[in-house]
Amino acid sequence: MSVVAAKGYMASGVWSGIKGGKPDLTLVVSRSPASAAGVFTTNRYRAAAVEISARRLKATGGRARAIVATSGCANAMTGRAGERDALAVSRAAAKLLRVPERQVLIASTGAIGTRLPVDRIRRGLVRAVRKLGSGPAAGVAAARGIMTTDTRPKQATASFTDGMIRFRVGGIAKGVGMVSPRMATILGFVTTDAGIGPRPLAGALRVVSEATFNEITVDGQMSTSDTVLLLANGAAGVRPLSSAGYGKFLAALGEVCGGLARALVQDGEGATRLFRVSVRGARSAADARSAARAIADSSLVKTMFYGRQPNWGRLAQALGACGAWFDPGRVTVKVGGEVAIRGGVCVPPRFDILTKLAEPEVPVEVDLRAGRYAARVLTCDLTEEYVKINAGYLS
Amino acid sequence: MSVVAAKGYMASGVWSGIKGGKPDLTLVVSRSPASAAGVFTTNRYRAAAVEISARRLKATGGRARAIVATSGCANAMTGRAGERDALAVSRAAAKLLRVPERQVLIASTGAIGTRLPVDRIRRGLVRAVRKLGSGPAAGVAAARGIMTTDTRPKQATASFTDGMIRFRVGGIAKGVGMVSPRMATILGFVTTDAGIGPRPLAGALRVVSEATFNEITVDGQMSTSDTVLLLANGAAGVRPLSSAGYGKFLAALGEVCGGLARALVQDGEGATRLFRVSVRGARSAADARSAARAIADSSLVKTMFYGRQPNWGRLAQALGACGAWFDPGRVTVKVGGEVAIRGGVCVPPRFDILTKLAEPEVPVEVDLRAGRYAARVLTCDLTEEYVKINAGYLS
Repeated sequence: MSVVAAKGYMASGVWSGIKGGKPDLTLVVSRSPASAAGVFTTNRYRAAAVEISARRLKATGGRARAIVATSGCANAMTGRAGERDALAVSRAAAKLLRVPERQVLIASTGAIGTRLPVDRIRRGLVRAVRKLGSGPAAGVAAARGIMTTDTRPKQATASFTDGMIRFRVGGIAKGVGMVSPRMATILGFVTTDAGIGPRPLAGALRVVSEATFNEITVDGQMSTSDTVLLLANGAAGVRPLSSAGYGKFLAALGEVCGGLARALVQDGEGATRLFRVSVRGARSAADARSAARAIADSSLVKTMFYGRQPNWGRLAQALGACGAWFDPGRVTVKVGGEVAIRGGVCVPPRFDILTKLAEPEVPVEVDLRAGRYAARVLTCDLTEEYVKINAGYLS
Repeated sequence: MSVVAAKGYMASGVWSGIKGGKPDLTLVVSRSPASAAGVFTTNRYRAAAVEISARRLKATGGRARAIVATSGCANAMTGRAGERDALAVSRAAAKLLRVPERQVLIASTGAIGTRLPVDRIRRGLVRAVRKLGSGPAAGVAAARGIMTTDTRPKQATASFTDGMIRFRVGGIAKGVGMVSPRMATILGFVTTDAGIGPRPLAGALRVVSEATFNEITVDGQMSTSDTVLLLANGAAGVRPLSSAGYGKFLAALGEVCGGLARALVQDGEGATRLFRVSVRGARSAADARSAARAIADSSLVKTMFYGRQPNWGRLAQALGACGAWFDPGRVTVKVGGEVAIRGGVCVPPRFDILTKLAEPEVPVEVDLRAGRYAARVLTCDLTEEYVKINAGYLS
């Protein structure tokens, strides 16, 4: 049910002609004004849609009615002309939906440096508005409309109760390359029918993104378009959530964003297998993050997992070069639950390691024994397919 | 002529049985005691050979007679046993060559976490000593003895005159993966017949490495074995160089190390094409380096060059995420001499860009217009072949 699982939302996804043959235009609409929050890329180059949506969230104090997203063209690095294009698209959507223009949030993903075909998108919007629906088909269509090299739509749903009322949280996301955990990654749109004010909503999104979307990486590259938007329209019960209810909402939001983040890595460009890097015992939070990222983003570690090879030395070289402080003699690294590195020595793998390396998700646990900070990153292997996709795809 | 181009050196390369069928043991010997200098990996995990050679250079005050290098086994992450193995190898070499043991420098490259077959290497050393020679064949054999996934031996030679005497500088190197510019990279052995004391020799190696071996990257990974050694035996003229002569020596050393560094990138695992990233106008040296590295190590930029695609947005995303300070609106990026990004906008490529992207080396010039610091990195594209090699090779 995804982004329309919660009450009071409609969605659609259609083909407008940005790219050949595949859906490229997604609408998510709340029937009533909703609280809204967003997290955006921290790249110094930001797409027009990112600038506009961030501005609008500020200007409205966190209120929105609709999200318009296009795929196939990121409308980034397009200057003032690109900004005018983005504004024209959101103006057209606002008119068709009869909502204030500044309550329309926008997002774009795809090739950088090319212009949006505004006229086609305007015509597409007419069809998208006509197709708005609240059933499962509408949710899937919306998830498909934002796909680029994604091989499948990503949806997630969760629910919680506060008092006698059941609330729902649902979302869609896309992202396959240029995915890195430094800040909000990819496109993600999440809706809930709980009644939550803009400030607690923004807090919830920040906290949950940090532990979900910001803990994944596919290729260590940070997009210029990354946007996660969260709407809360109170359609299931206007009364504000109790504080216990807010806690449950955080858990449900974490479930949805965690599910979407995981789906993003699983569908990482060319990925065949996941590995989760957990670092503990770091001297600082920054050390923990850089150690986890150094392993997760190492092309040699990623190809090692692809080849299912117990080359523990590659974990050591990535860790040893990451800049974090530790005593190599004290560090323990486990792969698939088995000790791989201890006392500065690679431990010869046991016979069953090949079975463990063939599992769909392999845990890599690092204990630096230098302090009390921890970090996690979920990532995927590096395959010939990643190279093929990116040597041929205009993104 | 490579490592035996300078007078008073002998070299050989033989198969000792570390790996199947290919040469894996290299000897470089100076006929007389030589000044010696080394630069080593800054990885926190360092191979036994790195520890021992660094220790010996310190203990002798920069004196050496011979270099023993093995390929196929890095003897890293092998603990005390690995250190004993390395010492046994260097002791055997010292006996055969009748030189003090601490004047034997050692280096190993290859799989991490496996032990050296000491007995086989001892037997190999006997053959290697017997084969020592000073002709071109000896130089090539020495270059072959240190190869791992290298597809060809790397050699370079230069000469200079001081007064009436002609001096020579020559070297060999290896390195195809785990090559990154943060400190001394790969294995490189350089010899000269000029008479230079240990301190100026160490200074020369430091300065020249910084501008050659440390300005390259293949995959952003830093080996645990990186070692560059430089010997100066004064065989062409014992008199110390004049200060003009020292300048000429620096130039010749730069030519040799630059040539070797370039050859390393050209033979980078799976590489089909080079690109040279130059950053200027950075606010600090660190900013310049991180901007150059962010582009050179970006998997999306590397696959873009492999695919010969003018996707300038990928350059922007790498630059925008690198952490360096700049105003996106003021930055100019040129590729192949043509403006690619200006004023925060991707400039549509001209028709002849495909010809330029097909050239064996493509310049990428970034002007951040934020200060006066600059940095350069030479790197290669990312291909399916890199993945194939590293999913199957135990390193």
